[in-house]
Amino acid sequence: MASNVQDVIMLLGDSITQGGFIADGFGQKLSHVYARKLDVLNRGFSGYNTTWTIPVFEQLFAQQHEQQHVPKVRILTIWFGANDACIPPSIQHVPLPEFSSNLRRIIRMVTSPTSAWYSSITKIILITPPPVNTRQRGADLASRDPPRDLDREFEVTHQYAEAVKAVGAREGVPVVDLWTILYEAAGRDEAKLSEFLYDGLHLNEKGYQFVYDDIINTINKHFPELHYDKLQSVFVGHADINFDNPAETLKLRKAVLSDR
Amino acid sequence: MASNVQDVIMLLGDSITQGGFIADGFGQKLSHVYARKLDVLNRGFSGYNTTWTIPVFEQLFAQQHEQQHVPKVRILTIWFGANDACIPPSIQHVPLPEFSSNLRRIIRMVTSPTSAWYSSITKIILITPPPVNTRQRGADLASRDPPRDLDREFEVTHQYAEAVKAVGAREGVPVVDLWTILYEAAGRDEAKLSEFLYDGLHLNEKGYQFVYDDIINTINKHFPELHYDKLQSVFVGHADINFDNPAETLKLRKAVLSDR
Repeated sequence: MASNVQDVIMLLGDSITQGGFIADGFGQKLSHVYARKLDVLNRGFSGYNTTWTIPVFEQLFAQQHEQQHVPKVRILTIWFGANDACIPPSIQHVPLPEFSSNLRRIIRMVTSPTSAWYSSITKIILITPPPVNTRQRGADLASRDPPRDLDREFEVTHQYAEAVKAVGAREGVPVVDLWTILYEAAGRDEAKLSEFLYDGLHLNEKGYQFVYDDIINTINKHFPELHYDKLQSVFVGHADINFDNPAETLKLRKAVLSDR
Repeated sequence: MASNVQDVIMLLGDSITQGGFIADGFGQKLSHVYARKLDVLNRGFSGYNTTWTIPVFEQLFAQQHEQQHVPKVRILTIWFGANDACIPPSIQHVPLPEFSSNLRRIIRMVTSPTSAWYSSITKIILITPPPVNTRQRGADLASRDPPRDLDREFEVTHQYAEAVKAVGAREGVPVVDLWTILYEAAGRDEAKLSEFLYDGLHLNEKGYQFVYDDIINTINKHFPELHYDKLQSVFVGHADINFDNPAETLKLRKAVLSDR
């Protein structure tokens, strides 16, 4: 059984989060740089929207009475919108006001002192959905057997991205505005988004690179004490072992220096 | 705080394990294919030998009285030898009999019913250290400032790999014999190991591919119920949500079907 020795970064989201452990995905990169400091937990759920995620998150995130036994979530990324923004009659569609209210609810589960899931130690980062390349997505869906109609619109997903930013601003939560970052990187040309999306919806390695970079920038700006370079490994580096009395130096430490 | 919702694969070892979350590393690949089923915990410690790992593992692995609260370790990979095989007077050197006895001690901590760390549910896989390319390693060390002498010998590391196999045979633990796999893949030509080792000691992506493949083969052969294709996701796939009553279908499940 795994003892509770490392706090964690929890990545909550849909398939774009679930897929983040491909080679050069954002989960892979975070795992690599936070090795021996924080574990990175993939809590991405392909196909899920915020409505379906709420009952799941209630089970994923420990309630206060359980928290003494389980790893502390130091960073929680919340990344939705790609499925919520599906066009009706898609079963995945969540109306925009409900999407915003769902996001707020997930955030306040963690940030509200009266919540059963309250965790004052958890730093949240919101991420906006990537822009959709509707030509690429439409072609992908049309090629399926049976062919399917286009299920997302460029401007609709943009509205959901803007809603994420508005929730972040109101709740005081930093936002990685991936929608804008990718659209700018594509020269504000929807067709050129294919450089970052492999099927018009999901990110490739180049797309994930932007997410990773901006998560690290956000950590650096808003909670620099959690940047991987500011943490110590929970067990001492090899060169710092006291070779005359190793056990003395091989005791579990806190990764976050301010916790000492 | 992270609830205990997914059991885990724990990767215990030295720098070759710690580095396994590079793009196309074995940890990255395991994380990807086990997403939503098992979490993969990197417990690799650069520079450590088995002697220094024992007191650390006593803290990493939960004792019986703690086990009800923490994730179950379903698979534990134990991968040492690369540092233990350093030549004296290297401080990392562990004599061969002591290396074997340390490995046995780590295994029996988990497998012996009288151990405080006993975990009947944990399946162990031993991995042999990769062969050393002493020309490549020697050149790397000679290029440092100040230059360092060669610290490992091809045939010595081979003896440590053989010792891992002997411990596995005696303890009834399956072994991924990476030493032999890589040496055969290099046509039994030490110089050609540079195809799999970036510095004569540590694996590159091609080297990690062999480890990943043989871990999956070993799981398939010895505990097929833990192959990722035999597990279910702990939360239901999107297509299986009951859209009329989502919460009913969004309850945490056991990933391992025989646990039900």
